[in-house]
Amino acid sequence: MPPTPRSLSLFAALFPLALAACATAPPPPAPPPPGGALWSVYETQLKTAKYIDLTHAFSPVQPVWPGFATASFRPAVAGATIPGYVAKGKPFTYKDHGFIATSYVLPTDQYGTQLDPPAHWDERGATISDLPPTYALRPLVVISIADKVARDPGYALQVADIDDWEARHGRIPEGSVVMVRSDWSKKWADSTAFNAKPFPGVGLAALKVLHLERKILFHGHEPLDTDSTPTLEGEAWLLHNNFTQAEGVTNLDQVPEAGALISIGFAKPKGGTGGFARYVAIAPADWPHGVSVIEAPGAPLPQQPAPLKRDAQGVLVPTP
Amino acid sequence: MPPTPRSLSLFAALFPLALAACATAPPPPAPPPPGGALWSVYETQLKTAKYIDLTHAFSPVQPVWPGFATASFRPAVAGATIPGYVAKGKPFTYKDHGFIATSYVLPTDQYGTQLDPPAHWDERGATISDLPPTYALRPLVVISIADKVARDPGYALQVADIDDWEARHGRIPEGSVVMVRSDWSKKWADSTAFNAKPFPGVGLAALKVLHLERKILFHGHEPLDTDSTPTLEGEAWLLHNNFTQAEGVTNLDQVPEAGALISIGFAKPKGGTGGFARYVAIAPADWPHGVSVIEAPGAPLPQQPAPLKRDAQGVLVPTP
Repeated sequence: MPPTPRSLSLFAALFPLALAACATAPPPPAPPPPGGALWSVYETQLKTAKYIDLTHAFSPVQPVWPGFATASFRPAVAGATIPGYVAKGKPFTYKDHGFIATSYVLPTDQYGTQLDPPAHWDERGATISDLPPTYALRPLVVISIADKVARDPGYALQVADIDDWEARHGRIPEGSVVMVRSDWSKKWADSTAFNAKPFPGVGLAALKVLHLERKILFHGHEPLDTDSTPTLEGEAWLLHNNFTQAEGVTNLDQVPEAGALISIGFAKPKGGTGGFARYVAIAPADWPHGVSVIEAPGAPLPQQPAPLKRDAQGVLVPTP
Repeated sequence: MPPTPRSLSLFAALFPLALAACATAPPPPAPPPPGGALWSVYETQLKTAKYIDLTHAFSPVQPVWPGFATASFRPAVAGATIPGYVAKGKPFTYKDHGFIATSYVLPTDQYGTQLDPPAHWDERGATISDLPPTYALRPLVVISIADKVARDPGYALQVADIDDWEARHGRIPEGSVVMVRSDWSKKWADSTAFNAKPFPGVGLAALKVLHLERKILFHGHEPLDTDSTPTLEGEAWLLHNNFTQAEGVTNLDQVPEAGALISIGFAKPKGGTGGFARYVAIAPADWPHGVSVIEAPGAPLPQQPAPLKRDAQGVLVPTP
């Protein structure tokens, strides 16, 4: 590894130790860590980091743009007869087949926490399956307009808000994801309130600065639209200029304004015009919110408090 | 940042420089990098890393377990009439409405590249929306059985294969994801060949070593089932013991056996028994496969070579 700004900074920090050691022989070099540099980064920084999910779980009862319908969740049924095991059309059950699965009717890909590719608005735009794998992990910037939105629900992010953020934290990193915190996601459980206008927006001038000058990967916001202008001018500009955006994100109030990473995942339907996404923030170990791998290792997982049964909407919930 | 194994190793590497500098005054400490340690890791290691997508794009024509049906892709239609704009049931079009969206009928969540939570087989198991956000980024181990599968398509990963891997690379890191490379994914475009039995498996004894002794997060494989035993003994053991697994992954022949990370994303339906997943490997900068952020920044995205039109299956494809 060549010296980098970070390793030079480390060098400076360790320099007094080196001076103290001048009178003695240098210690033998340490063996390289197993797996190399990326595994070392995992062990030293990512394992103790705090993970915060920025994703709403989607369901048949939730806010959606009024021109679309909501989803249906149903038990998966046999698509073909397998003699002695299941007849075509019969639902799979834990008791009779040893497993279940779920069937989804999703009338739109603009549903819940999502990633919008240009093809959503532009017949020459990239689809969700065209996005390169470098949409996986980026620096995360959070610019809060929550205070202004509390006074004016129609407030839209301005260039001045970007300037204020940069005065505190430095220049927005190229290639980063910029999430606009409005706290609008706290209304998610009340679809009427969530869909009410005006809702918090992201101004077109701010989008242009972020993309054309700071060269970010994409921005995200908590409402399901970029703004409430009559032409949706921000979304129109983004998607007609080959940029993507995230919509319907949550939990931005639990993420640092600077210094976190974001893991970006999404279902990959071929030629899709939207992505059912999962965004997770990765914050430094000393951040007060989120869970670390030590606290929530993920294997084995906790059991349900009661057996899973489908509710009236077809959603599996633990049911005593 | 306290000294860590990695920084001590750096210290050892830089020690001769420090000795040479003993006769002069130490330089002033460098300012801390903007955004802190995680952003520095991004700048120095993740930005130049090579990203490899391990995910099949899913579509209505593809391999699926014979008991399930395939998906349908259709144009999204208006779920409600908006006077002067669209009538209920009419498809949205670029020309008349300025945008399109896609509607999916997904008869099963066991479709394409997926993540199986315990609830798929166990009524007391965690669902896909219960998984903690620490399912976001992990060390990636790839154990290849491709040579053995080339001779015997029914070969299943054995404990000896794990031992061989560890003899070359050291102990499998706790909390990592272990992908079993069989090259079976190269048959994906031919559903009959892909679904033929026997297919490559992952043996139960190997799964027990990986989970109970190495304490991995989950394993993944290229076929759509864990093995071809009559009881699917591996999948049964995993999902009844509160573990998850990945199925239907691809491109493992382009990933290093050790030293990469994996970004783990998946759609988050509430109470879901399966996850439409996206897995991306992140390999060191000197790895010959994959693309870096420099090569594929993701913004702005390339345009389509021709306008997008739906094919006979409803999939949007560039069509001259």
